[in-house]
Amino acid sequence: MTLTSFGSDNHSGVHPLLFEEMRKVNEGYAPSYEQDSWSQDLKKLIRTEFDATDSALVFNGTAANVICLQMALKSYEAVLCADQSHLVLDECGAPEKIAGVKLISLPTQDGKIIIDQIEDFIVRKGDQHHSQIKMISITQPTEYGTLYSLTEIQSIRKLCDQHGLYLHMDGARLANAAVALKTDFKALVADIDILSFGGAKNGLMVGEFVIVRNPSLKEGLRFFRKQSLQLPAKTRFLTAPFLKYLGSGLYKEIAEHENAMAQYLFRSLKDISGVHITRPVQANAVFCQLPQTIIKPLRKKFFFYVWNENSFEIRLMTSFATSKEDIDSFLEEINKLIKSKDMQ
Amino acid sequence: MTLTSFGSDNHSGVHPLLFEEMRKVNEGYAPSYEQDSWSQDLKKLIRTEFDATDSALVFNGTAANVICLQMALKSYEAVLCADQSHLVLDECGAPEKIAGVKLISLPTQDGKIIIDQIEDFIVRKGDQHHSQIKMISITQPTEYGTLYSLTEIQSIRKLCDQHGLYLHMDGARLANAAVALKTDFKALVADIDILSFGGAKNGLMVGEFVIVRNPSLKEGLRFFRKQSLQLPAKTRFLTAPFLKYLGSGLYKEIAEHENAMAQYLFRSLKDISGVHITRPVQANAVFCQLPQTIIKPLRKKFFFYVWNENSFEIRLMTSFATSKEDIDSFLEEINKLIKSKDMQ
Amino acid sequence: MTLTSFGSDNHSGVHPLLFEEMRKVNEGYAPSYEQDSWSQDLKKLIRTEFDATDSALVFNGTAANVICLQMALKSYEAVLCADQSHLVLDECGAPEKIAGVKLISLPTQDGKIIIDQIEDFIVRKGDQHHSQIKMISITQPTEYGTLYSLTEIQSIRKLCDQHGLYLHMDGARLANAAVALKTDFKALVADIDILSFGGAKNGLMVGEFVIVRNPSLKEGLRFFRKQSLQLPAKTRFLTAPFLKYLGSGLYKEIAEHENAMAQYLFRSLKDISGVHITRPVQANAVFCQLPQTIIKPLRKKFFFYVWNENSFEIRLMTSFATSKEDIDSFLEEINKLIKSKDMQ
Amino acid sequence: MTLTSFGSDNHSGVHPLLFEEMRKVNEGYAPSYEQDSWSQDLKKLIRTEFDATDSALVFNGTAANVICLQMALKSYEAVLCADQSHLVLDECGAPEKIAGVKLISLPTQDGKIIIDQIEDFIVRKGDQHHSQIKMISITQPTEYGTLYSLTEIQSIRKLCDQHGLYLHMDGARLANAAVALKTDFKALVADIDILSFGGAKNGLMVGEFVIVRNPSLKEGLRFFRKQSLQLPAKTRFLTAPFLKYLGSGLYKEIAEHENAMAQYLFRSLKDISGVHITRPVQANAVFCQLPQTIIKPLRKKFFFYVWNENSFEIRLMTSFATSKEDIDSFLEEINKLIKSKDMQ
Repeated sequence: MTLTSFGSDNHSGVHPLLFEEMRKVNEGYAPSYEQDSWSQDLKKLIRTEFDATDSALVFNGTAANVICLQMALKSYEAVLCADQSHLVLDECGAPEKIAGVKLISLPTQDGKIIIDQIEDFIVRKGDQHHSQIKMISITQPTEYGTLYSLTEIQSIRKLCDQHGLYLHMDGARLANAAVALKTDFKALVADIDILSFGGAKNGLMVGEFVIVRNPSLKEGLRFFRKQSLQLPAKTRFLTAPFLKYLGSGLYKEIAEHENAMAQYLFRSLKDISGVHITRPVQANAVFCQLPQTIIKPLRKKFFFYVWNENSFEIRLMTSFATSKEDIDSFLEEINKLIKSKDMQ
Repeated sequence: MTLTSFGSDNHSGVHPLLFEEMRKVNEGYAPSYEQDSWSQDLKKLIRTEFDATDSALVFNGTAANVICLQMALKSYEAVLCADQSHLVLDECGAPEKIAGVKLISLPTQDGKIIIDQIEDFIVRKGDQHHSQIKMISITQPTEYGTLYSLTEIQSIRKLCDQHGLYLHMDGARLANAAVALKTDFKALVADIDILSFGGAKNGLMVGEFVIVRNPSLKEGLRFFRKQSLQLPAKTRFLTAPFLKYLGSGLYKEIAEHENAMAQYLFRSLKDISGVHITRPVQANAVFCQLPQTIIKPLRKKFFFYVWNENSFEIRLMTSFATSKEDIDSFLEEINKLIKSKDMQ
Repeated sequence: MTLTSFGSDNHSGVHPLLFEEMRKVNEGYAPSYEQDSWSQDLKKLIRTEFDATDSALVFNGTAANVICLQMALKSYEAVLCADQSHLVLDECGAPEKIAGVKLISLPTQDGKIIIDQIEDFIVRKGDQHHSQIKMISITQPTEYGTLYSLTEIQSIRKLCDQHGLYLHMDGARLANAAVALKTDFKALVADIDILSFGGAKNGLMVGEFVIVRNPSLKEGLRFFRKQSLQLPAKTRFLTAPFLKYLGSGLYKEIAEHENAMAQYLFRSLKDISGVHITRPVQANAVFCQLPQTIIKPLRKKFFFYVWNENSFEIRLMTSFATSKEDIDSFLEEINKLIKSKDMQ
Repeated sequence: MTLTSFGSDNHSGVHPLLFEEMRKVNEGYAPSYEQDSWSQDLKKLIRTEFDATDSALVFNGTAANVICLQMALKSYEAVLCADQSHLVLDECGAPEKIAGVKLISLPTQDGKIIIDQIEDFIVRKGDQHHSQIKMISITQPTEYGTLYSLTEIQSIRKLCDQHGLYLHMDGARLANAAVALKTDFKALVADIDILSFGGAKNGLMVGEFVIVRNPSLKEGLRFFRKQSLQLPAKTRFLTAPFLKYLGSGLYKEIAEHENAMAQYLFRSLKDISGVHITRPVQANAVFCQLPQTIIKPLRKKFFFYVWNENSFEIRLMTSFATSKEDIDSFLEEINKLIKSKDMQ
């Protein structure tokens, strides 16, 4: 594709420093299935950085989420999750099919579960006819690029404790959240029992992690992974770059750049007449409405998704590869199209 | 790991020419989820090379197998498979858990289903108490590195036709079979309805394919893939090298080298007193028994697996990275150890 | 329990005429697993009465629903259903666990899906990330005892045809609907592809039916039944009374009585000051609000469920065993309690 | 069916004394879903008779087995079971589909697992590629009507303890075993963690029990039951007769009669020239070979199953309804047919 893409942070390739790590480990023999030294080192590093009990490399975020559910839940239990969450909308029913559990959609504001309404959904405890609520899942940052503050997470944790629920975090873009909230991973997940931690949207090629924090949830991790079709063979190529990403602080650089590019895009767009920013810009996503007529010509030059076909809300994602120049050209084109439209 | 490994063909890294393809595509933006040009080109190439109806990239061989089962079978149906097959022994119950089907183990000779005995297992058709036999699955080459001849496959196909069964092939090392049988993929799979086609054991980094040949089995491929946690995002990095592997004839070179190395190993081992070759050597595996006392010291210098803890049968796999020198050193060490043992 | 119960139509026993049928068949030997003559005759009768392709006896309504889903859907498909439906609220996640599908809850008015809003939920066709909408499920009568008119069903059928969806009916109390709408089963299900047909709530002891109307959905019925743990052994005892129920017109008598009792209850309650009827009374359920303070003392003498713990809406079900005298005593007690409350 | 049946113990109806219990409870209202007094009393009785932690009524034996598996196992675990067991052969893949686990078939002698061979199948502990062995399941009496002695069960228990496995018993005809071994239920299941306890084959209409003995396996019983489609509504009709069956000692009378009839049949058959008894007769089944040519004419007058189509081994089951006269007529017919055959 020759078009500059704001379509997804996975439209970029592999960050050069991370690609270099793959190149470096491509020498000689190494054991497969996470027995190589890079995989072992990464496991230790994750233990430290996330105050984790255990972790397992998997192929993608959907898999990480579904394995988290299997680790924590019996099939007759249910998860409260945002009606806009990846679990509910974008995993083709994998949570139901593979973990067997029920997902219960909660109303959201800008992608975030409305905390005051959670308790209305914690019902029918002990009623054998009804799936038993046993987990709350939050996405950080959300699908709308918004963030739960640490205080908000603490409030949700409190609800979990009151009702005996586990707290799961879908962290497909967790670095963006850590950087935006000016905190580290350990503090960010301090209230979380089990989480999905992603790297592919931050410049890695492939690979995410199931990270178990609550020690009572650690049983069977490697077996659930294999049975869920998630055991990679040549793990060194997935874990060596991840080790660099996490261990050298590169994740911060990348996430800071992505977030900064989103802010730059936001600040530039918000004053354009005819453009309406629709969601708070807190991580690496900008959601906005454009004049409907410019969408089609604009998409001939830049790739992006129309998120809502009715309201013409579009989503713009920034990645490690997004440059100021990319954004400037994008804005220039928007201005040009709006102007030409106005002149008609 | 500094040890030379005959442990598995996935202990080698990525073939340099295939790694180079990854490097070449790491530039600019590309659509994800198989929408990039390399993925599209590869799909076309697979269509041609395998006379295929459709195909889908997945992460590993277990996943490819399990998706094949889901595509072809209802949950009340059963698969006849070799008692030594990966499906039965090495997928941690994924076929049962995810496809919901029953696997019925058939007796084998050197990893191959004994064709004359198959019909004894095609029983209770129409009996509502019993899973209905609907598929035969064969592995080519088998877990013991042996091969079904084209004639044998035709015999099995005939049984399938007589009893209304589908024929599945687990082709995790299919190139080794094609080369050994001096045929091409199209002829090799001419009698197959749906197959798993692997590359990671032939020098690729990650990625296998579900290939649908029987047009009546094509429904829902992309949805089963996603629901089975197998949709990769940055597909260009998986498909561009695969395109090279399949399109340039590189797969032949690699497989020929691997098979030749196995023959060299076999020829060198067979005449050593105290070494007993246990299986026909037809692809890139050599199975043999060594004097029990040399196994432990030998494993200090070379990595390999003891396949049978009781009979001390060991498995030696060759890969694109295996060199004559690797084998010569290995043999030298064996001879040295046997000699020193004899002198005791 | 000595208390008169309006708690559920399954708090009554077995209708004497239906019990008598069980007694009559309890003689001598009979084949099991639906091979007895009563089961065979009943299958033929269902074929006629419902213009059905096939049918299978199962143990309960949850099972009938879940088998309907398995017969019609692949695991990556989704069902649109009422947010108040048994499927969503009262089956402990069985549809998700066993059929593997996603249930999508639609907003309701008095338990009925709001037809004008259905199309808003038929989205993302062909998008591999999203469960594919393939079925609408309606409950007739609904959990609130309300009815879809034949015209409304036709409208929903039209939507199904436009979008390639199947139409499922949960008919746990179908006789009550048929009688209330002054129609027969054939007309009532004319637009339905596959349905659950219940008898236990109409005076039978145990047993419901999966009824397949759309011939393209008939494959594997008996295997899905067995695998779903639903094959009864001594079927004569379940089917002989059902044959009487359906073949002699007894279902009409029973349902007419139940509906009439609900109307009598409704008419008597609606004019009591302090009682508020909350839902249209169309079959054998009356939903109403009582003065909060009388609920506890009233439940000492009569059994019923508080349906909504916040609004104090209660549910009153009538059954074949409900008599005018039961209702009169109930009303008398309510009046007494209200009076004594008012005097405080 | 007018033919006397030795086909199955479920070809008989309901024992008159048990039917009478159903009649007696068919009066007035009672709570459903095991909340009625009979169900509550039965639960207490089972607790005492089986030294049980908990129990749950379900509809049939397949369901009881599959719920036992779900209660004790995670989906990546496996069960060692007899290659002739109902779990393996007669449940249409329900254990795999619903519990998600792998069944591993063990060789048998007359339906019994060969104890000396069990340990050969307890392999690959901790190997993430392989389902983890976690349970042994034995059937008592077996599908061939043979029995494990208490000493044999203790040996199997010992293996379970050594390897950290649970021990399951499929007791679809448990009363026949208790009576034959001259013991009570408590002693018979003293080494068992969780079991299926059946009544339908002993003269009840419908209903079996999941009985949990090991307290660590009690979690979620009622939810697994409901999600497995096994929650009956009008439970009084299933539990009141079961209460009589278990509480009054009637189960002994019935089982003693059945076993005695099998012995009578065995003793009468064994001396007929041309008849070959193929299995030890220990409970209520007689397996034998008849002269092939008499099978067809004999089946015109008596119903029974040919168990093995190749060896012409037939199965004869006795039930509470089997009378000496039934057997005498059967023998007379056999003798007549053999004689007429010999005269040809």
